[in-house]
Amino acid sequence: MRLTLLGSGDAAGIPLYGCDCDLCTAAAADPGLRRTASSALLESGALRLLLDAGQSNLCERFPSGTIDAIFLTHFHVDHLQGLFHLRWGIGESIPVYTPPDPEGCGDLYKNPGILEFVTLRQFETSRLGDLDVTPLPLNHSKPTHGYLFSDSRQRIAYLTDTKGLPSSTSACLADLPLDLVVVDCSFAPGVGSTGHNNLDDVLEIDRLVAPARMMLTHIGHGLDLWLRENPRRLPSHIGVARDGMRVFPHAS
Amino acid sequence: MRLTLLGSGDAAGIPLYGCDCDLCTAAAADPGLRRTASSALLESGALRLLLDAGQSNLCERFPSGTIDAIFLTHFHVDHLQGLFHLRWGIGESIPVYTPPDPEGCGDLYKNPGILEFVTLRQFETSRLGDLDVTPLPLNHSKPTHGYLFSDSRQRIAYLTDTKGLPSSTSACLADLPLDLVVVDCSFAPGVGSTGHNNLDDVLEIDRLVAPARMMLTHIGHGLDLWLRENPRRLPSHIGVARDGMRVFPHAS
Repeated sequence: MRLTLLGSGDAAGIPLYGCDCDLCTAAAADPGLRRTASSALLESGALRLLLDAGQSNLCERFPSGTIDAIFLTHFHVDHLQGLFHLRWGIGESIPVYTPPDPEGCGDLYKNPGILEFVTLRQFETSRLGDLDVTPLPLNHSKPTHGYLFSDSRQRIAYLTDTKGLPSSTSACLADLPLDLVVVDCSFAPGVGSTGHNNLDDVLEIDRLVAPARMMLTHIGHGLDLWLRENPRRLPSHIGVARDGMRVFPHAS
Repeated sequence: MRLTLLGSGDAAGIPLYGCDCDLCTAAAADPGLRRTASSALLESGALRLLLDAGQSNLCERFPSGTIDAIFLTHFHVDHLQGLFHLRWGIGESIPVYTPPDPEGCGDLYKNPGILEFVTLRQFETSRLGDLDVTPLPLNHSKPTHGYLFSDSRQRIAYLTDTKGLPSSTSACLADLPLDLVVVDCSFAPGVGSTGHNNLDDVLEIDRLVAPARMMLTHIGHGLDLWLRENPRRLPSHIGVARDGMRVFPHAS
């Protein structure tokens, strides 16, 4: 498996529109410092899967035939915005695997175009190519799935958006050797939210699940500032995502 | 008044995702041939108004403080997608004038962020700077407003999305000298649709309203092909929009 993070930000992103702090000023000038909507590309052999679809330029970035399927974590706009344009294409349909959510978002269900929405059930494993994919329930304001991807040798869990983990998910993950967990970490330590982790929550998930490596994603503006001011506060096996970063295999 | 078309396409756009026709192949290679979501920038003195917000890169294109207000024609995603990100900014709120539509789109009403949605009533004129703005009802699958912009010397009507015109709108416009009408022309002659004009419908609107100039926008893939095959079929006062085209004042 190869995992590349396409985006590492929350819905607002970096630069934050209208913000003139040093971080946002630098990111406005240097695309390498930006944080766009959290999403990832998972490749295994010839198989190419998108994890979330919040990048608005999916059509340009992934020409027809270069994506085999999309796994949506949930139906918030920052996790699916690219589908609004992609759906109007022609040719082969693209499976979009989702948690059960009768609301969906906007008119996607009504006008799916080339998208074929397929509802997955939590903990029911599917096989795609050489991969096993298992949806894991998360704690968020809409029905939300994290995903566990396994091949014969390795396991990666992609867990966003969430506040902590349901006990069923943490119990499932704690039983497995995990090579990498990519996890929602939107806020700095002590910052409250009902739908997203702060760094305290993430350290607790790390303690429960004990992965070999962990990458923080869905980084919010306040956390990004905090990380600049506290550059050495993370355990060595925990890294901070950047847009475009190849996070698996680990370049060690 | 100065009017610049930011986009000239329908929801699918050009290139059409997955299409390998000559038109789409050329547009994939040359950004100047693309058609993105129909929308426009209207400037009058220091006033800068967006007409629709379907461009997904509004945050980069219009830094904070460079847009005074947004006029939405309706709540379909291809006319507002850029708002999904823009709303999460900080600083001064941005008025978004809309037709009355209790549904809105996605969670925009629930989470407006810096956007201040203001419902307009048809035929009730508002004053912004030196401009009078009058919402005009259109025929579409959602509540939809065209807009008439007038200063002391000139009048521009922006009419998308629509199939024909309601008699109240055509009667209002027929009574006025119009410098420019920008109008939805999604389909080639004879192609049926309940929500969008084909070229026959547009020629009928032209006959009823008799503007000095008319620009076709919201161009669909089939019409774009038809226009290439029939380059001299339009009256001389009717032009075809392109993305980025300054359409008023007319460079004659």
